[in-house]
Amino acid sequence: MEYPAPVARLIEELRRLPGIGPKSAQRITYHLLKGTVEDALRLGDLISRLKEGIRTCSLCNAITDQEVCVTCADPVRSDKVICVVEEPHNLVAVEKTRDFRGRYHVLHGALSPLQGIGPDELKLQGLLDRVRGGGVEEVILATSPTVEGEATAVYLARILKPLGVKVTRIAMGIPVGSDLEWADEVTIPKALEGRREY
Amino acid sequence: MEYPAPVARLIEELRRLPGIGPKSAQRITYHLLKGTVEDALRLGDLISRLKEGIRTCSLCNAITDQEVCVTCADPVRSDKVICVVEEPHNLVAVEKTRDFRGRYHVLHGALSPLQGIGPDELKLQGLLDRVRGGGVEEVILATSPTVEGEATAVYLARILKPLGVKVTRIAMGIPVGSDLEWADEVTIPKALEGRREY
Repeated sequence: MEYPAPVARLIEELRRLPGIGPKSAQRITYHLLKGTVEDALRLGDLISRLKEGIRTCSLCNAITDQEVCVTCADPVRSDKVICVVEEPHNLVAVEKTRDFRGRYHVLHGALSPLQGIGPDELKLQGLLDRVRGGGVEEVILATSPTVEGEATAVYLARILKPLGVKVTRIAMGIPVGSDLEWADEVTIPKALEGRREY
Repeated sequence: MEYPAPVARLIEELRRLPGIGPKSAQRITYHLLKGTVEDALRLGDLISRLKEGIRTCSLCNAITDQEVCVTCADPVRSDKVICVVEEPHNLVAVEKTRDFRGRYHVLHGALSPLQGIGPDELKLQGLLDRVRGGGVEEVILATSPTVEGEATAVYLARILKPLGVKVTRIAMGIPVGSDLEWADEVTIPKALEGRREY
């Protein structure tokens, strides 16, 4: 018994997504087969067109559908503090706590010599430009407390401090070895509050 | 910080899939955003077109892209034994063991009075027709050992036995309360082998 080709191909393709194993891929496929044509078309269309009009913010590299993202465009936020995160969803996690009213910078990665990710693979230039441009008093390094995130924070502290800006690291309120993504809305403000100077 | 609309809508839509929580939906969305346009288009297209040309076998109700599925069309298999399963993926699970060489019947569900699923909601007619048509010596009830699967087996035994066919139930080698889907390739043959007559 083989699956019909379109079914087998979708199961195979779904397995390539993060967190989806063979059983999950099969369950999702049968769920879609049992659902309406409209449901499948809606999901398929959203995926196909996902990248249309989506870009990274020209200031902070967040995911946006504008030239400048909502956070950077907000006139009320303080330009004096920049919170540096690894990935766009880390920004969303911090933002959900409504505890931070400064600006962000998204690196789109973390240093990982083993995976061949060096400083050139990270989006650093915009951050350096903003700090050099003046007006920034503090850069909070909110990379994840993993080996890679820690290495990235140490590296950033080393290149940012000579520019005369205060560089801080979020506190290890977030369980070490975990990812910022999994931290809850109580832990993130605690970590922001307990930040220490490098 | 809000997600751009296409991103937020995809996360929302992915959360409706079985086994996908809010974090998974977000991870998958970012995975797709980081990937190539071609990857997103390929997955989107597979989902959109999934139901095109896919139908249920006119004999056993398995998922197929032909009028009659591969298993029903196989001339080598025995017509004397029909293995009844709840869902198409249960058929695939049994078939993977290469232990059963008869035919199948897929019910597309199980009796569940709480969810309002009665005999009319199951695909029973084809099974009854085949048994009444003669030549079938045994019907193996391989519904899952859950409350619903057990109720379905009891119900089927009651309507099939008066037709003069031997009705058997797979053995409880599969952990009770679990789903046939999770059984491994050693347990399924054991369960088939240890089947007992109703």
